[in-house]
Amino acid sequence: MTANIRVTIWNEYRHERKSPEVAKIYPEGIHGTLAKALSEKGYTVRTATLDEPEHGLTDEVLENTDVMLWWGHMAHGEVRDEIVEKVHKRVLDGMGLVVLHSGHFSKIFKKLLGTDCDLKWRETNDKERMWVVAPGHPITEGIGDYIEIEHEEMYGEPFGIPEPDTLVFVSWFTGGEVFRSGCCYTRGQGKIFYFRPGHETLPTYHHPEVQLVISNAVRWANPTAARKLIRGNTPALEK
Amino acid sequence: MTANIRVTIWNEYRHERKSPEVAKIYPEGIHGTLAKALSEKGYTVRTATLDEPEHGLTDEVLENTDVMLWWGHMAHGEVRDEIVEKVHKRVLDGMGLVVLHSGHFSKIFKKLLGTDCDLKWRETNDKERMWVVAPGHPITEGIGDYIEIEHEEMYGEPFGIPEPDTLVFVSWFTGGEVFRSGCCYTRGQGKIFYFRPGHETLPTYHHPEVQLVISNAVRWANPTAARKLIRGNTPALEK
Amino acid sequence: MTANIRVTIWNEYRHERKSPEVAKIYPEGIHGTLAKALSEKGYTVRTATLDEPEHGLTDEVLENTDVMLWWGHMAHGEVRDEIVEKVHKRVLDGMGLVVLHSGHFSKIFKKLLGTDCDLKWRETNDKERMWVVAPGHPITEGIGDYIEIEHEEMYGEPFGIPEPDTLVFVSWFTGGEVFRSGCCYTRGQGKIFYFRPGHETLPTYHHPEVQLVISNAVRWANPTAARKLIRGNTPALEK
Amino acid sequence: MTANIRVTIWNEYRHERKSPEVAKIYPEGIHGTLAKALSEKGYTVRTATLDEPEHGLTDEVLENTDVMLWWGHMAHGEVRDEIVEKVHKRVLDGMGLVVLHSGHFSKIFKKLLGTDCDLKWRETNDKERMWVVAPGHPITEGIGDYIEIEHEEMYGEPFGIPEPDTLVFVSWFTGGEVFRSGCCYTRGQGKIFYFRPGHETLPTYHHPEVQLVISNAVRWANPTAARKLIRGNTPALEK
Repeated sequence: MTANIRVTIWNEYRHERKSPEVAKIYPEGIHGTLAKALSEKGYTVRTATLDEPEHGLTDEVLENTDVMLWWGHMAHGEVRDEIVEKVHKRVLDGMGLVVLHSGHFSKIFKKLLGTDCDLKWRETNDKERMWVVAPGHPITEGIGDYIEIEHEEMYGEPFGIPEPDTLVFVSWFTGGEVFRSGCCYTRGQGKIFYFRPGHETLPTYHHPEVQLVISNAVRWANPTAARKLIRGNTPALEK
Repeated sequence: MTANIRVTIWNEYRHERKSPEVAKIYPEGIHGTLAKALSEKGYTVRTATLDEPEHGLTDEVLENTDVMLWWGHMAHGEVRDEIVEKVHKRVLDGMGLVVLHSGHFSKIFKKLLGTDCDLKWRETNDKERMWVVAPGHPITEGIGDYIEIEHEEMYGEPFGIPEPDTLVFVSWFTGGEVFRSGCCYTRGQGKIFYFRPGHETLPTYHHPEVQLVISNAVRWANPTAARKLIRGNTPALEK
Repeated sequence: MTANIRVTIWNEYRHERKSPEVAKIYPEGIHGTLAKALSEKGYTVRTATLDEPEHGLTDEVLENTDVMLWWGHMAHGEVRDEIVEKVHKRVLDGMGLVVLHSGHFSKIFKKLLGTDCDLKWRETNDKERMWVVAPGHPITEGIGDYIEIEHEEMYGEPFGIPEPDTLVFVSWFTGGEVFRSGCCYTRGQGKIFYFRPGHETLPTYHHPEVQLVISNAVRWANPTAARKLIRGNTPALEK
Repeated sequence: MTANIRVTIWNEYRHERKSPEVAKIYPEGIHGTLAKALSEKGYTVRTATLDEPEHGLTDEVLENTDVMLWWGHMAHGEVRDEIVEKVHKRVLDGMGLVVLHSGHFSKIFKKLLGTDCDLKWRETNDKERMWVVAPGHPITEGIGDYIEIEHEEMYGEPFGIPEPDTLVFVSWFTGGEVFRSGCCYTRGQGKIFYFRPGHETLPTYHHPEVQLVISNAVRWANPTAARKLIRGNTPALEK
């Protein structure tokens, strides 16, 4: 069932090439780690990165993607506006989008949500405990009461997002903060999931439960009923 | 995929036995017509009716139901409270529930929604046109811009329901009214869909697109991640 | 402006009369402490308690209440169903309702929300930090980034409520849990706010910011546009 | 109470100057008609139009606006992006925004909502009947069951918007369509109301109930609790 879902993992892929510390954790890039995890779960996976032509997001790739993952951080501004436009259009037409961690500040996420998507943060490796607040939601399948991540960057409220359609996870941090860590949206015909964890200097994407949530999110975001919409000037149905 | 979904169609089954006019349209009862339609689509279907012992809803039936359909009208008050309690608990534990037409006034729907669920109505066989307002939603799969029903009872606003999580259909009626005809809710771990059409004196449940929506709703409401919740007195995780 | 808002503070008023420990903190009852606070802010306040005739909630009181506060804990089961019915009807007709702390398990809250309203809890006086996640919301007026309560009972997720219309506060607890502590709903024409803090053995309702939130919530829940609804059998508007 | 609310009515103001037909209905411009109506209700009103320097939206004007109205149609593309950015920022910081009719395609509305905001339309002067689906909502104060507009342009579903926080009005049109005509959103600290009616060739903005809804919407959108947010790198609260 997952085999029919075509996933494109987009990664900025700069930290991994510039910082030996990050490269040690993600030698094939964050996208490489996630591609391996999702392939093992049976999805049809490809990757794309910032420094490829068209950021790896050609029309052909976009048309053949059911769900896209997005990780970016230091180079949001280098993502070209015309590519963002195309991704935006694909989401409205039904493509699922899973935005990860610092992707909260990506052009595509801000464009889809319409708000500043700003937040508090702290890089002192708090413990994070992500509580399930929407039990029964497909994104939580196989997850217990909470997911514990021994070391993570803190993100704190107020997170500048529209009220989620469904709030799935809320994080607790050692330092005293909380954060809405798993947020579902529908925009146009596309489903969007924001998932908080994943600082580049930490092995978060090797965490089995983090991988499971991402896998669940891909399945949840996979479009089922996308169609061509009838808009514009239309004649009356009744005389 | 649908074969694994166990559907129980609950019907009051009084109109069909009392009124020759209704019996002519639904000789096997409304539940019979819907059971045939859903069986043909591959679901594992059983039926239950008001005048059976325990209204046909024994513990065994409830435990082995993934999604329940509910049609009632003239005898809402005869549904026993202890059965309603059990169905309510099953929905909170994850069972899907599709409430049809006059089921808006059923005990189970009012108990789950918490409001009066009242509305306007008129039995003069308006034409109904149900517009899709949530394209891309799985419940609309295979449906065009709208569904047209040549003759139906009118239901009008203000409908006394909580704001739906997702509004899927809005109806237009010849007589000048509108109605929120397809409404999604999550309550506990269960998914609920209210679907307006289906007056007993009209052949609405023989309409292929009405059947398709009900089939889609069953698939949408099928629980995927229901679990036993941890509640009550709990020790601290941090010292 | 607040003077025109008629508030009825309902309190179970049993702990205060049975436990010297509680009586010391709330010598006039929890309702007495809240009545003083709201009167000082200019509201027109009365109180009602469980052991009064009709629990103090006569038709006359209900008709002349704009916003009701509800605190209950050990005697939820003693609240008579016909009184709950009346309060329920008044909320649907527009009366505001602010449900406090252990009121999450009251008959009226469960009836309005339709879910089990269950949660985790622990009485070891965690520190609670309630974060504002909806800045700009009128209930947060005058509140900073968060409210800190030195000692409180812990409430933990998953809280068995429908997704709030607006989530206003999320709590952090020393022991490692989070909780959706401030939740807005509309049911019928009435506005409902659930506000978590307020364990009877702790001086929470003397906390100025807790009082401020409750005052803000009363102003927010005050009905502005309630009307008599037109329902039932109606003639067509178009011929 | 309304006197303290500072309203800026922004109008494209092109149709009125180019078309004698439109000028006849709105000799002072659509903004002039609305300014008169809101002034009479006691608001502090100013206007701004596309062809003024900075489109009439200087920093000084923006800082001193509590609620902005927006009407545009033929010249959305001429609104400068840097002005849209400023209005966007002001909304996130708390300024209310009431978007009228063809403003659904304005840059500011699309930027705030993140979707294509597309729809069906027809200029054959259908009758429009806007039903209240959220009775008790302050924007419906003083309005009956519905508002009838003898002649209006039709707008039809599917309307390309995110699910509204609150759906207030749904329109019925003679030609057989429905439309979500009154939609509330919160984005950042700002409240947004989209209100459908108001085609430039028709006297809709002279309609007393249309004016009343707009006045109610201004009062509803007026910010009450906007504040400076704390974001960015923050130290831990707990050691």
